[in-house]
Amino acid sequence: MTASSIAAEAPRQGTATHAERQGRTGGPGQPADPHRTLERCRALVRPALAEAVGRLHPWVGEMAAYAFGWCEVGGAPTVAPGGKGVRQALAVLGAEAAGVPGGAGVAAAVAVELVHTFSLLHDDIMDGDADRRRRPAVWKAYGTGPAVLAGDALFALAVETLAGQPGGAAGMRALSAALGDLVRGQADDLLFTARPWTGQERVLPDEYRAMAEHKTGALLGCAAALGAVLGGAAPETVTALDRMGRHLGIAFQIADDVLGIWGDPRVTGKPVHGDLRERKKTLPVLIALDSPLGGRLATLLESGDAPDAAAELIERAGGRSAAMAEARSHLAAVETALAGLPWEAGAAGELRSLLGFLVRRDS
Amino acid sequence: MTASSIAAEAPRQGTATHAERQGRTGGPGQPADPHRTLERCRALVRPALAEAVGRLHPWVGEMAAYAFGWCEVGGAPTVAPGGKGVRQALAVLGAEAAGVPGGAGVAAAVAVELVHTFSLLHDDIMDGDADRRRRPAVWKAYGTGPAVLAGDALFALAVETLAGQPGGAAGMRALSAALGDLVRGQADDLLFTARPWTGQERVLPDEYRAMAEHKTGALLGCAAALGAVLGGAAPETVTALDRMGRHLGIAFQIADDVLGIWGDPRVTGKPVHGDLRERKKTLPVLIALDSPLGGRLATLLESGDAPDAAAELIERAGGRSAAMAEARSHLAAVETALAGLPWEAGAAGELRSLLGFLVRRDS
Repeated sequence: MTASSIAAEAPRQGTATHAERQGRTGGPGQPADPHRTLERCRALVRPALAEAVGRLHPWVGEMAAYAFGWCEVGGAPTVAPGGKGVRQALAVLGAEAAGVPGGAGVAAAVAVELVHTFSLLHDDIMDGDADRRRRPAVWKAYGTGPAVLAGDALFALAVETLAGQPGGAAGMRALSAALGDLVRGQADDLLFTARPWTGQERVLPDEYRAMAEHKTGALLGCAAALGAVLGGAAPETVTALDRMGRHLGIAFQIADDVLGIWGDPRVTGKPVHGDLRERKKTLPVLIALDSPLGGRLATLLESGDAPDAAAELIERAGGRSAAMAEARSHLAAVETALAGLPWEAGAAGELRSLLGFLVRRDS
Repeated sequence: MTASSIAAEAPRQGTATHAERQGRTGGPGQPADPHRTLERCRALVRPALAEAVGRLHPWVGEMAAYAFGWCEVGGAPTVAPGGKGVRQALAVLGAEAAGVPGGAGVAAAVAVELVHTFSLLHDDIMDGDADRRRRPAVWKAYGTGPAVLAGDALFALAVETLAGQPGGAAGMRALSAALGDLVRGQADDLLFTARPWTGQERVLPDEYRAMAEHKTGALLGCAAALGAVLGGAAPETVTALDRMGRHLGIAFQIADDVLGIWGDPRVTGKPVHGDLRERKKTLPVLIALDSPLGGRLATLLESGDAPDAAAELIERAGGRSAAMAEARSHLAAVETALAGLPWEAGAAGELRSLLGFLVRRDS
């Protein structure tokens, strides 16, 4: 499940003002429209992203375009919605807020979108997830081998994009560190599923926290900071942006885990109590297992045949509320990181509204 | 099949001289021992490579170590032979020949070995090859998902290795260009298998040539040139090294294709006429299909049940000898590139002997 599902059914916020239609939204004292912000960033990034994808082998490029939601299998235009582009927006807004040249933000956004999409393609293979954004995953649509290749191609393209930029070496250091974390988090997540609910070998909440930071936090931190890195912003600005994205990512992951158990299947597109059926070791469960009700819960989970009773028990044990409180504390850390930055006013307003929009369902 | 199988059963050349035991082999007028050269380069590169792999998640690191032939599944020491390390030797010797600092050659060798191993892991998944160096491929030993992840980790580690080097941005540009070619070549190779032997949709020899240059030539060219790139060598030196490695790679690929049809199964570890059974579109076949015997050959290949008769017909049509002549012309181009370089004497001698050893079976 992706972090973006948090905002999956949040309603469109009001109508565009004249100022918004001009481009950047939310002047001083005026709340920015997050939909407009996302749209503005997608419009800024799309030409460079399309140009990069256009350099791929045509068959590989089609798989990439399918993954981005630009076409159907065979290349026909699609009616499928693409991703909202949270990461590319973070990259653009982070660079704008840090006051670096616009090209740095766009290049960072392209690299981050390519890496994010590469990781989705490969993660869907590893996790056996047949659907992505309500369409067949690339490996289901094109085959496992081709999906491996398309992911590799997107990864190589991200490296190529950064290598061609001023500040590219620093950018590569930031991106490769995030990728190292991403792989580490994915490895732990894969290994967690084979571990028991109780006993010495059980997954501890702190192991989950490290996994979530690696798997989701690192790339969002990199997304927020990468434009500033490329543009040569001050180290404390880069650090604050990275921290902001990282805490946002962890909050996303926890909120997704809550949705994975209690989310409305009509919204999440996943079966009710889906994560419990798949025996996923997520934070609400791990916290509940550490509570006085943990023994009963473990028995129930091991039997595997009453996910609704298990969900209820996790809630009674305080797993749901403790997880949500933890997500909220990460959002408070996002606010702290935001407050400490030398913001360029327009970008700050847009970023604040966007973050509010993304986390509305959790706070 | 890998290029390295060309020299799979070449005998050990003589015994080590005193000078050889000192380290570098082959002083002025003295032929270098290619086995010692390979061993010297492996010994130079191994600590840095092991240090890099040691930074991986332990489980992913074990898969990497298995792939390098350092351990068995579970981490126990192995008796399996690792690769000869042709690419790392090219990187070290290329850097030495260009006269750049030793650290550049080692960093280049580490990056190239990581990328090469990443590509083997993923290619074996795509091609469905269950064995690699007479052991189960990583995807057979650990599962497809984990093998995808381990490949990604090695790729990220290669990027991290270069990003931390002086000259890293130029190195990343060289490596990402090679990777783009690698993906392009692999995509074409995968698509070739589905295309017919005859008619409009058939694979032309020139399409094969482009595929071979992309799939095998680009990374060998990058291996030979990358240390020089990192060390800031003159552009014409970099170009000559790249060209040398590239022609060597194409020669390897063609020679492998010849072995894939006529190679001794006891040497290649593959079934007799294996590539014909798998309907691979390789150069000897494509050349023979373009000859006056092409029609008969196509009928035979389409029936698919007489690979030995097909092999004989390809030979009669001149496919084998024309392919070998083409491999030899690439080796001549390797010589030309070598001759045009401002060689440091010791490295030149070692490189020349190594090349001779690697291609002995073709020339």
